[in-house]
Amino acid sequence: MKRLLASFLVTTAMTGAAAADDLRDAALDFFQPLPSTVPQIADNRVTPEKIALGKSLFFDPRLSASGVFSCYSCHNLATGGDDNQETSIGHGWQKGPRNSPTVLNAVLNEAQFWDGRANDLKAQAKGPIQAGVEMANTPENVVLTLNSMTDYVAWFNAAFPDDAEPVSFDNMARAIEAFEATLITPAPFDAFLNGDDMALTEMERAGLELFMDKGCIACHSGVNVGGEGYHPFGLIEKPGADILPVGDKGRFAVTDTADDEYVFRAAPLRNVAVTAPYFHSGKVWDLKVAVQIMAESQLGEELADEEADQLVAFLDTLTGTVPEVTVPVLPTETAATPRPTAEVIIE
Amino acid sequence: MKRLLASFLVTTAMTGAAAADDLRDAALDFFQPLPSTVPQIADNRVTPEKIALGKSLFFDPRLSASGVFSCYSCHNLATGGDDNQETSIGHGWQKGPRNSPTVLNAVLNEAQFWDGRANDLKAQAKGPIQAGVEMANTPENVVLTLNSMTDYVAWFNAAFPDDAEPVSFDNMARAIEAFEATLITPAPFDAFLNGDDMALTEMERAGLELFMDKGCIACHSGVNVGGEGYHPFGLIEKPGADILPVGDKGRFAVTDTADDEYVFRAAPLRNVAVTAPYFHSGKVWDLKVAVQIMAESQLGEELADEEADQLVAFLDTLTGTVPEVTVPVLPTETAATPRPTAEVIIE
Repeated sequence: MKRLLASFLVTTAMTGAAAADDLRDAALDFFQPLPSTVPQIADNRVTPEKIALGKSLFFDPRLSASGVFSCYSCHNLATGGDDNQETSIGHGWQKGPRNSPTVLNAVLNEAQFWDGRANDLKAQAKGPIQAGVEMANTPENVVLTLNSMTDYVAWFNAAFPDDAEPVSFDNMARAIEAFEATLITPAPFDAFLNGDDMALTEMERAGLELFMDKGCIACHSGVNVGGEGYHPFGLIEKPGADILPVGDKGRFAVTDTADDEYVFRAAPLRNVAVTAPYFHSGKVWDLKVAVQIMAESQLGEELADEEADQLVAFLDTLTGTVPEVTVPVLPTETAATPRPTAEVIIE
Repeated sequence: MKRLLASFLVTTAMTGAAAADDLRDAALDFFQPLPSTVPQIADNRVTPEKIALGKSLFFDPRLSASGVFSCYSCHNLATGGDDNQETSIGHGWQKGPRNSPTVLNAVLNEAQFWDGRANDLKAQAKGPIQAGVEMANTPENVVLTLNSMTDYVAWFNAAFPDDAEPVSFDNMARAIEAFEATLITPAPFDAFLNGDDMALTEMERAGLELFMDKGCIACHSGVNVGGEGYHPFGLIEKPGADILPVGDKGRFAVTDTADDEYVFRAAPLRNVAVTAPYFHSGKVWDLKVAVQIMAESQLGEELADEEADQLVAFLDTLTGTVPEVTVPVLPTETAATPRPTAEVIIE
């Protein structure tokens, strides 16, 4: 692949529309622009009713035992769809084990979580709600909560009209997935892929060329510039234990296969410039430093300073426009709504 | 006042437009409808630039030391402008001392906090940001944070063009106040006051009559149906120590005057039906129970069950329409932005 790209670089002139066309043609072998409509989900038809319900659920802190945390807390749409924390703070002020990934464009990832342990967003959504260090709730208590408010019951009925039991933990997750499918953020890079030569500056195009030439695309490709495929962190050279803590063996915990030690899903890079800190450990705040670490650990390359700057300039073009989301007005709790509890139960 | 209202009740027929007119005339002696435009603030002219900046600040968790809490966390626009907690949970999972009041229409309160210790919302906004059990930040760190992001600097410059030093803790508070001034929620009760006879049902009107006749208006009047004036909780009969904890002497802590022991600002009752739990202690979740406690403790009245229901029906008419607020896209942190810290410093 590297050879292919080197020959591409030799044969293309560096400026002008023809060069842009060639660069675009090369890029389209590895990347796809975001769709202009909300992606459909094979086993969860996205409907306006599901989206509306899912938005309310996404913003509802009563999905957590304490009533403090909603999906929005760690996937904050105001700050790139994540929480700007090394690892998230949850129930009882406990710290989660890994950095919170952005919810933006997440529907287009091949699998969810850093280790890909959830196949899709509806499987993902059920995790943090039940995790003791995150929202610390139970499916039973969530269903009690939702059934206690007639508006929610009506909205579930409208979103799942063919279900015998519309209000369920599974349908909650399906509705959240449907809402999250709307969180697509078209970026300058998409405009470039779609044919707009002016969308990227010369430096950004140089960064894109480098991104392909250096081999970053071996892991970070596709519509989300990553988010598909699993790769060892430290393929060539393991980064320090601060960045790659020994105790977190990544996908090994999912597959129990020795080959999967310290293997992680390649991070999707859309909006990477606005979602520091980086890596599953969240230990690196500077994007240029993160790029340099990746080059060394995954490619065995020491980047020239200018190269790192160009790569960062390209990554900046992946920062997209977040769709306008109005804060929902949630149903009011009733006498039947379980009360919030801040108690931390150590099991 | 009670005599005056009794005579009003005798002289009005209970149904029809004439009765509605009389009831409205009586109500307008005690209440005013919400304004149809954003209220101006004498010492803080509300401008579009300040509102836009203030909205971003209101939603920005980086105003807290931990990066977990924003103003929005405890004044959630999705849940009535408060947090549905007895008392708020803040930095280090600490519980605050009093129930979080709604931010909706708060600009129209005579003073802020349960004890009125802040004259206005710009004074109020500085409190939780610095409180160790809430956002645990310092003005210096906030200013460092804001100055580290060029977008914020530009927005402060636009909002405070005549200031020598636009980015300041004071101006942060002014901008937040300007945004909060837009959070006005016209309700069916306003439609009634504005002349719409159909806005209230017969039961709701009966509740309004009772509200005036029983003397609730002695404390809960004005545009916010409360929020002005200070009164002892337990004027006639002290409620139990669960509801009125002995340790919290209310306004006494502000004025150091014996007369102010257990004195609180009369709660503004707009949106009361969607902002449980009730009282500064947050110990009562049921609005009807709260109404019964108020009648006993403040008026020495045991309400008939039907009366309590009518009063609740009236209070329901104070639930207003929350303005549409889109989630802002916040500036991205830089190398100069102070990093979040979850550490709890006990002083």
